[in-house]
Amino acid sequence: MAMTVPPKPPHGLAGIGKESLPTPSLIVDEECLNSNIKRMADFFADGKARLRPHAKSHKCSALALRQLEAGAIGVTVATIEEAEAMVAGGIRDILIANLVVNEFWVKRLLGLAAKSDVKVAVDSVQNACQLSRATQGTGTTVGVLVEVNVGMNRCGVDPGEPACDLAQLVSSLPGLQFRGLMGYEGHAVGIEDRRARAKQCERSMDLLTSTAELARSRGLSVEIVSGGGTGTYDTTGRYPGITEVQAGSYALMDLQYRRVTSDFRCALRILATVLSRPTRHRAVIDAGLKSMSTEFGLPEVCNQEGVVLDDLSEEHGILRVGEGHPLAPGDLVELLPSHSCTTVALHPILYVLGASQVVEVWEVDGRTIDPCMSNGSIGPSCA
Amino acid sequence: MAMTVPPKPPHGLAGIGKESLPTPSLIVDEECLNSNIKRMADFFADGKARLRPHAKSHKCSALALRQLEAGAIGVTVATIEEAEAMVAGGIRDILIANLVVNEFWVKRLLGLAAKSDVKVAVDSVQNACQLSRATQGTGTTVGVLVEVNVGMNRCGVDPGEPACDLAQLVSSLPGLQFRGLMGYEGHAVGIEDRRARAKQCERSMDLLTSTAELARSRGLSVEIVSGGGTGTYDTTGRYPGITEVQAGSYALMDLQYRRVTSDFRCALRILATVLSRPTRHRAVIDAGLKSMSTEFGLPEVCNQEGVVLDDLSEEHGILRVGEGHPLAPGDLVELLPSHSCTTVALHPILYVLGASQVVEVWEVDGRTIDPCMSNGSIGPSCA
Repeated sequence: MAMTVPPKPPHGLAGIGKESLPTPSLIVDEECLNSNIKRMADFFADGKARLRPHAKSHKCSALALRQLEAGAIGVTVATIEEAEAMVAGGIRDILIANLVVNEFWVKRLLGLAAKSDVKVAVDSVQNACQLSRATQGTGTTVGVLVEVNVGMNRCGVDPGEPACDLAQLVSSLPGLQFRGLMGYEGHAVGIEDRRARAKQCERSMDLLTSTAELARSRGLSVEIVSGGGTGTYDTTGRYPGITEVQAGSYALMDLQYRRVTSDFRCALRILATVLSRPTRHRAVIDAGLKSMSTEFGLPEVCNQEGVVLDDLSEEHGILRVGEGHPLAPGDLVELLPSHSCTTVALHPILYVLGASQVVEVWEVDGRTIDPCMSNGSIGPSCA
Repeated sequence: MAMTVPPKPPHGLAGIGKESLPTPSLIVDEECLNSNIKRMADFFADGKARLRPHAKSHKCSALALRQLEAGAIGVTVATIEEAEAMVAGGIRDILIANLVVNEFWVKRLLGLAAKSDVKVAVDSVQNACQLSRATQGTGTTVGVLVEVNVGMNRCGVDPGEPACDLAQLVSSLPGLQFRGLMGYEGHAVGIEDRRARAKQCERSMDLLTSTAELARSRGLSVEIVSGGGTGTYDTTGRYPGITEVQAGSYALMDLQYRRVTSDFRCALRILATVLSRPTRHRAVIDAGLKSMSTEFGLPEVCNQEGVVLDDLSEEHGILRVGEGHPLAPGDLVELLPSHSCTTVALHPILYVLGASQVVEVWEVDGRTIDPCMSNGSIGPSCA
């Protein structure tokens, strides 16, 4: 489902060694990334369910294209900006697994719908009517999934009758095309015990698939039933009635998900430079809160034995250094992020590393930018 | 110290009302911002010390220019990217209150030094020699402040003899010009009790100024002695021997600093749209961890009585809504950030609001971007 887009000229930093990169920056181990992508693709190779990876984790159309090449049917995104970047990158089959209510972004959603197969989540009568009204006079149809609350208690309409009532309304509104249901078991994906996680996930998927059955019994065509994350892909991907899985973190991985599953390896690292070695036991790096997120805990140093990240300020990381460790200004320190999704959102570029050099420089093109610039191409688009 | 740069064409979103803005986004109350800038400028009007506001808090050259117009002598920054944006915005007098060790950024520092009066901090013999070597053959001189550890225990050489030894080395190295000392009392700025804060700050400033005296007694010219933050501007700005104050957060303010000082008002808000109202007591907005930082606690809803921010996920904020509150999809929610510096770093734009509309659209031009694009202008600059 990828269109051809003209190739970009090579980036000024392609081909250089890791030690010549600016820091702080994000590096991706290509071998590790490819193996994660392949492992997930292999799981879905039998076609029982299909994989639509969530691009909120990497916000990068170049990475998404690798996922599609391996067999993914399209991408899932959380924002219009991410969707625009994916479409500019040549991907046409997009699920916005989020509600779009802000009027500015509703207009942009219609722009996307005109040139791609975009589906958006809806969980209220009000939002459904708003989207329908917005299509009037545009000749555009927007695909809609009804978001069902499968136990996470964030957004979503209640499963069963309430969800079917909304689906029926969506089906009847001009400019909207009802495509199916989605439900995200965000309360299950992080449970460390594999069995407990699967059990919680199954309860959610039962709510979702039984709602789909009810909708079909009312004569609605439920083409897509979408759920799942990296912690639950193996449950959702085999659950009868689930057609698509939204897992995203598996490609880059992080410490949080490493506690949950050993199926994938950490491909993403924060690259930092030692700025200062003020005492025997303290060193300071040039990466802090503006380069790595901490809501799931501190990142971990992974390339220096006996060196521990102790604290972060805005532009600094404070390291506790073991007795006699030679760490000195200029040395490179690599850290595993605790949460890759929010860490990637802090960076403009992913430097993809082969055995000894940067083999790809990927723009994090789904990143939030001036909304009057289109993601994926520079040029005003405020109308 | 501001040069003339050609005016930009008006932004596509200038002149619109708040309700037409994309969300999540950052809005700045112009009256409040101006009053904060004026209040700080008034404090420094007697010239006892001078104000060099820290731009890491706003990363915005347009905002920095307002601070300069009100009397600030230049800007303080934390990164080369911020410095480049300020220079592109027309500001020539720059203090990088941070160590620059990464070789990629050292090269860019020399580019800056060639076209502006840039000063950088140094805290090690190794870094001093590195910078000196880098200037060789460039014909460029880099101004250097020796960073002194005044009790924060992050970077910085010890006060007294060790700092003076390094200052003497810097003075002797080709390509470097020793300009003075800096020390940041980061362990003092957030102490809520005014007296305890002032006392802790005075201890730090004593270490810094006595080191400056010692350096002068060794025949060194100590032009700049720089310290201070928003919590301590009134102590550092009157402390004998301190020549410059680096306060930055005062312009935009946040919840953390509101607990410390009532001298300034919160000018910055996160603007969000209600996406969903799934239950009587829960609503969900379109702003989450990717739009606001949480290391100093959760932001606070400030425009809706009886509505409390309870939790954040990546793109969502969960609100607890009082009984009977009519909050509905499409409504605007405004939140005060707990930490403006790390919150601004998540956004590309500051929308400056007058009484009823957007009066300025300011690019957060010191934000981290593709390092092969210059901040402040689009165009490759990797050599």
